[in-house]
Amino acid sequence: MEKMQEHTVRSYGEELRRLRELVARMGGLAERQVADAVTALVRRDAELASEVIGRDSEIDALEREIEEFCIRLLALRQPVGQDLRLIIASLKIIHAIERIGDYARNAAKRSVVLAQQPALGSLNGFQRMARMVQENLKGAMDALVNEDAARADEVWANDQPVDEVYNGIFREMLTFMMEDPRNITAATHLLFVAKNLERIGDHATNIAETVHYAVRGQPLTEERPKGDSSPFAVVRPPA
Amino acid sequence: MEKMQEHTVRSYGEELRRLRELVARMGGLAERQVADAVTALVRRDAELASEVIGRDSEIDALEREIEEFCIRLLALRQPVGQDLRLIIASLKIIHAIERIGDYARNAAKRSVVLAQQPALGSLNGFQRMARMVQENLKGAMDALVNEDAARADEVWANDQPVDEVYNGIFREMLTFMMEDPRNITAATHLLFVAKNLERIGDHATNIAETVHYAVRGQPLTEERPKGDSSPFAVVRPPA
Repeated sequence: MEKMQEHTVRSYGEELRRLRELVARMGGLAERQVADAVTALVRRDAELASEVIGRDSEIDALEREIEEFCIRLLALRQPVGQDLRLIIASLKIIHAIERIGDYARNAAKRSVVLAQQPALGSLNGFQRMARMVQENLKGAMDALVNEDAARADEVWANDQPVDEVYNGIFREMLTFMMEDPRNITAATHLLFVAKNLERIGDHATNIAETVHYAVRGQPLTEERPKGDSSPFAVVRPPA
Repeated sequence: MEKMQEHTVRSYGEELRRLRELVARMGGLAERQVADAVTALVRRDAELASEVIGRDSEIDALEREIEEFCIRLLALRQPVGQDLRLIIASLKIIHAIERIGDYARNAAKRSVVLAQQPALGSLNGFQRMARMVQENLKGAMDALVNEDAARADEVWANDQPVDEVYNGIFREMLTFMMEDPRNITAATHLLFVAKNLERIGDHATNIAETVHYAVRGQPLTEERPKGDSSPFAVVRPPA
């Protein structure tokens, strides 16, 4: 990565644009991690899973660099108003992206075990979830780079389909467990992978909320439609 | 809660002290949420669980207030050096506490369902985990209020026992599932509660790391001992 030191000679406006681009680049890395983790899962590809696990440190390193960049901007430029909000929002967003990276890594770890376990179902739901959360993450990053609050609001309102797929997977996995105890290890790991994807979706939504705040200067106060009913789910064994 | 506006007349040093206290108060609320969520689980007390679910909005409101306070401090006081680091650290910490609150609420939701399901084992492990993560969270808050980097480092190094209890619970729950399919719903929710506690422990550790950075001005670069081996766990049904 290009050294940050070079940017101190840039203009302030360029620095802020650079900040948005760095955050979006970090978001892009996380998107790829999510995509590859789920590809590794579906293809039972332990090698790709290991690559995902190894690459997580790149995201962590980028988080530290962007954080340092923000702190230097705050100290040297003493921003106020919208510039200050953008920097604060960036700090919040990179932390959320770092968490997304952790969830992708955790999913990849489970894929390594799952490649050795009996296959359960088509895993189509996992691919759909991954596609949806990637799109939301990408949308949130586009909204940030283009300072587009309307795009952020779209992403923010778009988490419910992710939750619906998750609720379906939750029930499906419990059913696999009840059918045959030999499915239990695999189904449990798959449950956690699905939960990871659901949380990644939540983080993408939170990022969109933060982008809205950075652009508009007002928080989104509306209550978000929340569709994860799985904490209350009960599945019964076949009679 | 006392209105923030009153603090604009205070001295800068008082404002920074006030910031640390507000963050610690938010941490105290989260600690109580974790304790009550696990008490509700162990006592099968759906009413207490509902209280925990309802109280989560207090933590969210406090996060927003502290964030506003930080932004005002940054805009009005234009801090540099250690003061700037403290404010940036506070923003990071309140976000982690907000996540801890979410995990406690999620555990409480599951306790409502679990109160209707067959009881599985003693749940001693859950109480131990809850006690450990509460202690770590309290230690991190004390370190913040007293600007005590050594205390923060203690907390930071103390996450492994939490992970060990978690790994034990993971295997125990899979065994319950394999013994009797009627245990599957309860054991699955308990697995997620244990995972929530494990993540709460992770967040407490991250907070300690952030406090270290705020006090010392240097990040903790050592690799943290990581004990959660459950993503790789395989449990076999009895022959």
